[in-house]
Amino acid sequence: MNSYILKIDCQDEKGLIYRVADIVFKYKLNIVKNDEFVDKEHGKFFMRAELSGELNTKEFLGTLEAMLPNNAQIYITPKCKKNIVLMGTKESHVLGDILLKHYRNELNANILAVISNYEELKPLVEKFDIPYFHISHEDISRQIQEERILSKLQELSPDFIVLAKYMRILSNDFVKHYKEKILNIHHSFLPAFIGANPYKQAYERGVKIIGATAHFVNDNLDEGPIIAQDVITVNHEFGWREMQRAGRNVEKTVLSTALDLVLEDRIFVHNNKTVIF
Amino acid sequence: MNSYILKIDCQDEKGLIYRVADIVFKYKLNIVKNDEFVDKEHGKFFMRAELSGELNTKEFLGTLEAMLPNNAQIYITPKCKKNIVLMGTKESHVLGDILLKHYRNELNANILAVISNYEELKPLVEKFDIPYFHISHEDISRQIQEERILSKLQELSPDFIVLAKYMRILSNDFVKHYKEKILNIHHSFLPAFIGANPYKQAYERGVKIIGATAHFVNDNLDEGPIIAQDVITVNHEFGWREMQRAGRNVEKTVLSTALDLVLEDRIFVHNNKTVIF
Amino acid sequence: MNSYILKIDCQDEKGLIYRVADIVFKYKLNIVKNDEFVDKEHGKFFMRAELSGELNTKEFLGTLEAMLPNNAQIYITPKCKKNIVLMGTKESHVLGDILLKHYRNELNANILAVISNYEELKPLVEKFDIPYFHISHEDISRQIQEERILSKLQELSPDFIVLAKYMRILSNDFVKHYKEKILNIHHSFLPAFIGANPYKQAYERGVKIIGATAHFVNDNLDEGPIIAQDVITVNHEFGWREMQRAGRNVEKTVLSTALDLVLEDRIFVHNNKTVIF
Amino acid sequence: MNSYILKIDCQDEKGLIYRVADIVFKYKLNIVKNDEFVDKEHGKFFMRAELSGELNTKEFLGTLEAMLPNNAQIYITPKCKKNIVLMGTKESHVLGDILLKHYRNELNANILAVISNYEELKPLVEKFDIPYFHISHEDISRQIQEERILSKLQELSPDFIVLAKYMRILSNDFVKHYKEKILNIHHSFLPAFIGANPYKQAYERGVKIIGATAHFVNDNLDEGPIIAQDVITVNHEFGWREMQRAGRNVEKTVLSTALDLVLEDRIFVHNNKTVIF
Repeated sequence: MNSYILKIDCQDEKGLIYRVADIVFKYKLNIVKNDEFVDKEHGKFFMRAELSGELNTKEFLGTLEAMLPNNAQIYITPKCKKNIVLMGTKESHVLGDILLKHYRNELNANILAVISNYEELKPLVEKFDIPYFHISHEDISRQIQEERILSKLQELSPDFIVLAKYMRILSNDFVKHYKEKILNIHHSFLPAFIGANPYKQAYERGVKIIGATAHFVNDNLDEGPIIAQDVITVNHEFGWREMQRAGRNVEKTVLSTALDLVLEDRIFVHNNKTVIF
Repeated sequence: MNSYILKIDCQDEKGLIYRVADIVFKYKLNIVKNDEFVDKEHGKFFMRAELSGELNTKEFLGTLEAMLPNNAQIYITPKCKKNIVLMGTKESHVLGDILLKHYRNELNANILAVISNYEELKPLVEKFDIPYFHISHEDISRQIQEERILSKLQELSPDFIVLAKYMRILSNDFVKHYKEKILNIHHSFLPAFIGANPYKQAYERGVKIIGATAHFVNDNLDEGPIIAQDVITVNHEFGWREMQRAGRNVEKTVLSTALDLVLEDRIFVHNNKTVIF
Repeated sequence: MNSYILKIDCQDEKGLIYRVADIVFKYKLNIVKNDEFVDKEHGKFFMRAELSGELNTKEFLGTLEAMLPNNAQIYITPKCKKNIVLMGTKESHVLGDILLKHYRNELNANILAVISNYEELKPLVEKFDIPYFHISHEDISRQIQEERILSKLQELSPDFIVLAKYMRILSNDFVKHYKEKILNIHHSFLPAFIGANPYKQAYERGVKIIGATAHFVNDNLDEGPIIAQDVITVNHEFGWREMQRAGRNVEKTVLSTALDLVLEDRIFVHNNKTVIF
Repeated sequence: MNSYILKIDCQDEKGLIYRVADIVFKYKLNIVKNDEFVDKEHGKFFMRAELSGELNTKEFLGTLEAMLPNNAQIYITPKCKKNIVLMGTKESHVLGDILLKHYRNELNANILAVISNYEELKPLVEKFDIPYFHISHEDISRQIQEERILSKLQELSPDFIVLAKYMRILSNDFVKHYKEKILNIHHSFLPAFIGANPYKQAYERGVKIIGATAHFVNDNLDEGPIIAQDVITVNHEFGWREMQRAGRNVEKTVLSTALDLVLEDRIFVHNNKTVIF
């Protein structure tokens, strides 16, 4: 018995669940878990099912396509580990947290490599026997550095790229190669404190809550679809460095949570928002 | 177009979703919202759907019963306001919060009456033109007091009874008349601090978090199925009265949240636990 | 034995605690609770003490002034109920929550009156025997409406004004009469979603957390010093009306918490931020 | 200029702050941060100050002792890194989190060694060049195993011992050697779910919130003074293994937070509860 993930995203109509359940039944699959959501504002239907059984996925896909509305986006995959590449700069707390999770075999992914624009993270990464590629941005244009990263990524061919505190902005040209495939952790509860040093911004504003946001990266800085957020309370005793220090645990937890959701194919992106089952 | 809530709770089998979706489709109903859950440990299937269309519920129920496993529990109801009775003692914060929510027409229920073992709450309740019945426990046995309450409840015939800080223990004889129909708010994050004065217990133990728990009442004190919980942080500056004071907002919020879930038919009880959609 | 609150806010120097403690000791006062904070970035010292004993506050103030740095702000007051005026528009959830807290004698304040630009809240307010003043903004300029409100406020002479979902922007001219005396509840975790309909903004952005912020009102909309914030989690099933509905409990709790802090003289405002003991 | 931590814990009296501030002033020390708390129920005074200046701590201690009530507990120490020993069993998430924090130089401690009753954690610990001592409990009595651990601890002479998921109960004989020096993380929001497999207990009870608790270890299992707690929400989809998985982030965060408080001398223990500044 194998396990599969089925994701459907199409225009809403009467009888969609019936049609899908009918096909699943005829293929003698068991529905282990099933979630649906209708976005009434936009007339969109979302469905994710975990199926068990024996399946020719190509044929199954064809049968579903014939029965579902035109332009339906249907995704069927055996449940398995994804391949990911991590990118970092100098800070190791988020990167290290993912490396440890991978080390204790709790990450549903193979880490193909870590790419960084600095050397600082190399000793840590190599402790865990993960390849480390240093692709500096110094003395070269953004375009050239990104081309070097892209070239390395094409060679590695990851399913997802995880920005574990990679502190450089990626150009639109870069991002368009990996639509909804690049995951980032921003150290504020977006949309508050977009841009540089959000802890300093939070300190200046005198907020009583700080947070972190994991999101897919799109064309606009810190404006991609939000996957997960969490917060902690602070008070007047926190300078921005104390906020930064306290925030590290939230950054780790939020990215870890979001990454699990991504790796388990639980996320739909629609209208710059996420539907998560 | 009418709206209906369908709830199914039965032994898990292949094809259940298909069978239900098939019937729903044949009755020309639209599935507005649909949730399922399979408890693999106990082999149980739970489903809740919001349907819109025109329906003879009796006939629909019969058709479903014929197609689902024996002993399936099927519940179909038009979406509508429930009738509730509130019970209190002397504290007004939770009761008042529900009265206000009802007053601004945000409670999906008619409040038939408030029953209390004291007179203290009467002036507040009468401000909102809700009938108030004082059924004292003084100078009479528990049995006689409960019979008087039961007699009043039978006359009022509520769908649910909400214990809004009713500070007396209800006997098993009382509770068995209203299985999964009595909702209580306990002022601790159960199962911590069962019984009397949980804030004092929390203070004595020196916890850094206190909470509140809304649950259905069953035979055993504070051991019924949990519906909702929430917590707040405290520190060494909190004596038990400060905890009690701070806890009031949590008690209000947790009961309010749980009551909404009950009134919208979102809860299944199974094995002394709740499945909530 | 009487109780007093002492608040000191001055430039930081060596020996400040010693000097204050010395004077308190010589006046034979007991320090029931004492908090200090030094803002190192700005070289500012903050202290708040609860004292018990017998005191000529004027003389005590003079002695302190002689011993503390020039321009020290010193505030000494007997512990007592403050007088407040509530302002609202049409929504009753926050206003009602404060009225109930006052009714059950848990608010450390006398509610002198409710002022609203509409009639809708009148029946609720009058249930609690609080004077209600309807000062409409219709068919008149902002200036004239605000003058009418100011005139009523001058007559009532409150210590603090609480905007319990008062949905009109107050002009700078109005605000300057009540510097750090006007408390507002904004229905987002500021600085996210400043301005109109923050729940709609939150829905559009697809956040996974929404919140509320209580702050003092200053010249700039939603940019005054933050007193308290809290959040709740949401998901893709929440439209903006569901966010609004769920947010009401947070709005009530956050304003209630902030109002307690204000009424107990626990807040210093400094550099558009709050220091709270 | 050096930094010192001063902690005082004595019977409450009038003039204590004055007396301490007077001495601090005479020693020409600057008070960088100061916190006090009076436990009125037990008539106890707690004070913690961060001082800067030049100091003969022995002489300073003598002067304080002469001026404070008999039996006052006075603790003065230069601000510096503590020495700690970690103990673990097989699970690496909490241990790894501390190792990483130490690696990136954010832990205010030297890790002298890791002691474990198994071999599993050795490869991870050795990646970070920390000595690893395997002291098995197999085929020997509890007493003998504990004597071996004690012997190793006496040799290492740590300030604190951190049980990072050490899954064996320590005997009273062991604990009495390190009163308020052994820090433990328990994977439930104590006092709920004391004892073995709290996630399974939480699953069986059907709670909607799970948590973790960091506490000092005393004679009674899971009943020592609580330092920090935090929680996360769960629902009916969580089996106990999903709770365990989700709980790991909370366990890491709570122990990390508590350990920082311990290492910065911020905690007083009194009456089996903590006062934390």
